Amino acid sequence: MSSPHVFPVETKFARIASPGQPFRFGCGAELDELVLAYETHGTLNEERSNAILVFHALSGSHHASGICEEIPGLAGRWTAECHHGWWTPFIGPGRALDTDRFFIICANYLGGCYGSSGPTSLNPATGRQYGPDFPNVGTGDVVRSQALLLDHLGIEKLHAVVGASIGGLLTLNFATMFPERVRLVVSIASGLRTTVLTRLTVFEQVIAIENDPHFRGGYYYGGPAPEYGLALARMISHKTFVHLDSIERRARGELVQSGDQLAWYRVGHNVESYMLHQGKKFVKRFDANTYLRICDMWLRFDPLEDAGVQYSHELFSISRRAGHHWLVFSIDSDYCFYPEEQAELVKQLEQAGVPAMHITVHSEKGHDSFLLEPELYTPHLAYSLRRGVECGDAWESDDAVP
Amino acid sequence: MSSPHVFPVETKFARIASPGQPFRFGCGAELDELVLAYETHGTLNEERSNAILVFHALSGSHHASGICEEIPGLAGRWTAECHHGWWTPFIGPGRALDTDRFFIICANYLGGCYGSSGPTSLNPATGRQYGPDFPNVGTGDVVRSQALLLDHLGIEKLHAVVGASIGGLLTLNFATMFPERVRLVVSIASGLRTTVLTRLTVFEQVIAIENDPHFRGGYYYGGPAPEYGLALARMISHKTFVHLDSIERRARGELVQSGDQLAWYRVGHNVESYMLHQGKKFVKRFDANTYLRICDMWLRFDPLEDAGVQYSHELFSISRRAGHHWLVFSIDSDYCFYPEEQAELVKQLEQAGVPAMHITVHSEKGHDSFLLEPELYTPHLAYSLRRGVECGDAWESDDAVP
Repeated sequence: MSSPHVFPVETKFARIASPGQPFRFGCGAELDELVLAYETHGTLNEERSNAILVFHALSGSHHASGICEEIPGLAGRWTAECHHGWWTPFIGPGRALDTDRFFIICANYLGGCYGSSGPTSLNPATGRQYGPDFPNVGTGDVVRSQALLLDHLGIEKLHAVVGASIGGLLTLNFATMFPERVRLVVSIASGLRTTVLTRLTVFEQVIAIENDPHFRGGYYYGGPAPEYGLALARMISHKTFVHLDSIERRARGELVQSGDQLAWYRVGHNVESYMLHQGKKFVKRFDANTYLRICDMWLRFDPLEDAGVQYSHELFSISRRAGHHWLVFSIDSDYCFYPEEQAELVKQLEQAGVPAMHITVHSEKGHDSFLLEPELYTPHLAYSLRRGVECGDAWESDDAVP
Repeated sequence: MSSPHVFPVETKFARIASPGQPFRFGCGAELDELVLAYETHGTLNEERSNAILVFHALSGSHHASGICEEIPGLAGRWTAECHHGWWTPFIGPGRALDTDRFFIICANYLGGCYGSSGPTSLNPATGRQYGPDFPNVGTGDVVRSQALLLDHLGIEKLHAVVGASIGGLLTLNFATMFPERVRLVVSIASGLRTTVLTRLTVFEQVIAIENDPHFRGGYYYGGPAPEYGLALARMISHKTFVHLDSIERRARGELVQSGDQLAWYRVGHNVESYMLHQGKKFVKRFDANTYLRICDMWLRFDPLEDAGVQYSHELFSISRRAGHHWLVFSIDSDYCFYPEEQAELVKQLEQAGVPAMHITVHSEKGHDSFLLEPELYTPHLAYSLRRGVECGDAWESDDAVP
């Protein structure tokens, strides 16, 4: 891999609603002051045809590559841990998402806590932070808000849309809500629905937060935050992101913290200290109301409804008619989105006649592999992204493979 | 199977400590007023050689078979759900644990909330319930307290000790702490240590309870109980007990309860309603301080320390020297105690030269199979239990198999 992408990056902001043009949420609410925080890498070509939109995962941000030391207005929440872009080894000159060729865009989700409008934003009607009064955000809202960002940037059609984990669910939404606006769809370690197991673990996280003594229905700004509740939510999800062997290995260096005295239980093992430490570290950089919104959008994920169709086969026919190509990655040790989920996605794509490439990488890191092991993804990502450019609209033909 | 065991059963109580003979906990604390609640089925023979001790699982009780409509002093906590013995299809005339041949004993764990001394008991020093001041209970304490119960019943040596889930961990403790007091060890859907995954899910449950606004460090008696925290703990564990397909199937009949309005999130799926309902139902019949104690003993499970040895092979050598036979069951769909865990237990038994039979049952019910499908366990349980009786001390020889 090339050396780290160390240059500073700036967060940009785009208004995606105004008093004359309010944004209408799927839940029916309308707001006319909405902003998305986003970041771009590389240069948009003259034809405006080389843009790639990247969706981040649950706790990520628009800061995908390079170093960003501050975001106006975020102060304490933008901890040192956030300064390095979460996909830096994937985005840069000569990398999988090659900034010498492509113009990469990544935006913080609507409802987020890293600069996009969300529960931590000021409600102009009250002069206080929205908190629970910010409208419910669905994955369809996230995708529509980012389509407005593309309008703002003057990009009619994306070269590709790329997402891992929940970001992968959003690529499915994008492809089927705005089929004419994208060519290649890349879904990494993701799926096509919210499985029962995911529903259970995400619902547990909702209750963990809402039952925190400081949550107060979401009106906790100005007082203590629901820290243990959010930490517990993070612990519940962390165990699905990281392979258990890795947790055990990482925990070996962890001392059993005598300061981790809970109300009655005394932490007795380094694995417990490690997990609690992960949870507490996360709390510093994330907002519980935003976390709940992302849980909510995950639990209510419904790409059929968002695309206005009734059956799965109709969903993927949209992709076929638009001439999409799909690239789907599985991680063999993933137990956040199990390999079976990607297999089902690919099966449905194939049944609908959509060209789809399905690559399974072997990793001992579990779901997190997509953040940590660029070498497992780069060749196929680079190949599929370049192939699209070189073939242009004749991409459908396999003869055109370089 | 024979018809349900419908006759009424009574809870008995045994004092296992007195001012002259205090019980010393592993943590160093001493109490001189301790009671175990227990139940017996069948008749102890003249030689006092036909007794079987059954350990219950996490949320179980001493009420293993038949109908028990009340337990003195428990009132509301002894809900209708508790009235049927949790192992009724396994214990009775002609059943796996045949009450025509054997004398079955099951005791509520020390620290429990179904009649044995625990956090809900009155502290004679204060006249109030112990709450968090009841000493920490280890699995070694549970086993030593039940050995005292055997003394109380005049039973020197058990025919067998039987336990599933956490109860299986206790059989390992019993066999290696009191090797001369048992012949056959039956461990069902259990293991030999607390795995990383178990540690994570049990630790999550601890935090779920301790972070409840009503927990107040465990001093919640007289006020509202930490209900949502305990319900969340139950939900976290329930998903490891019941196969996901079963959860999905059972949830189909569940309406999305509009009454399940949490602080912000609106329950949106019958699987969520179902799980919340399971959690809330559990809260009515269980005490959070007892739940924490059982989590604590699970997290600190250390059979080597309890047996006073340093290495695993020494542990199982104890079993070999005592002439134990082991019968180990795995459930192929279990993801509370994974089949790999029983395989490791059996491997270690074999390496130590302990005769062990390992049976894997196929079930679609997950861990809970051991409660629900007696036909999968009965033939081997009945065979191993009878074989022991018929062979007496010559049991070691395979020639003696009937």
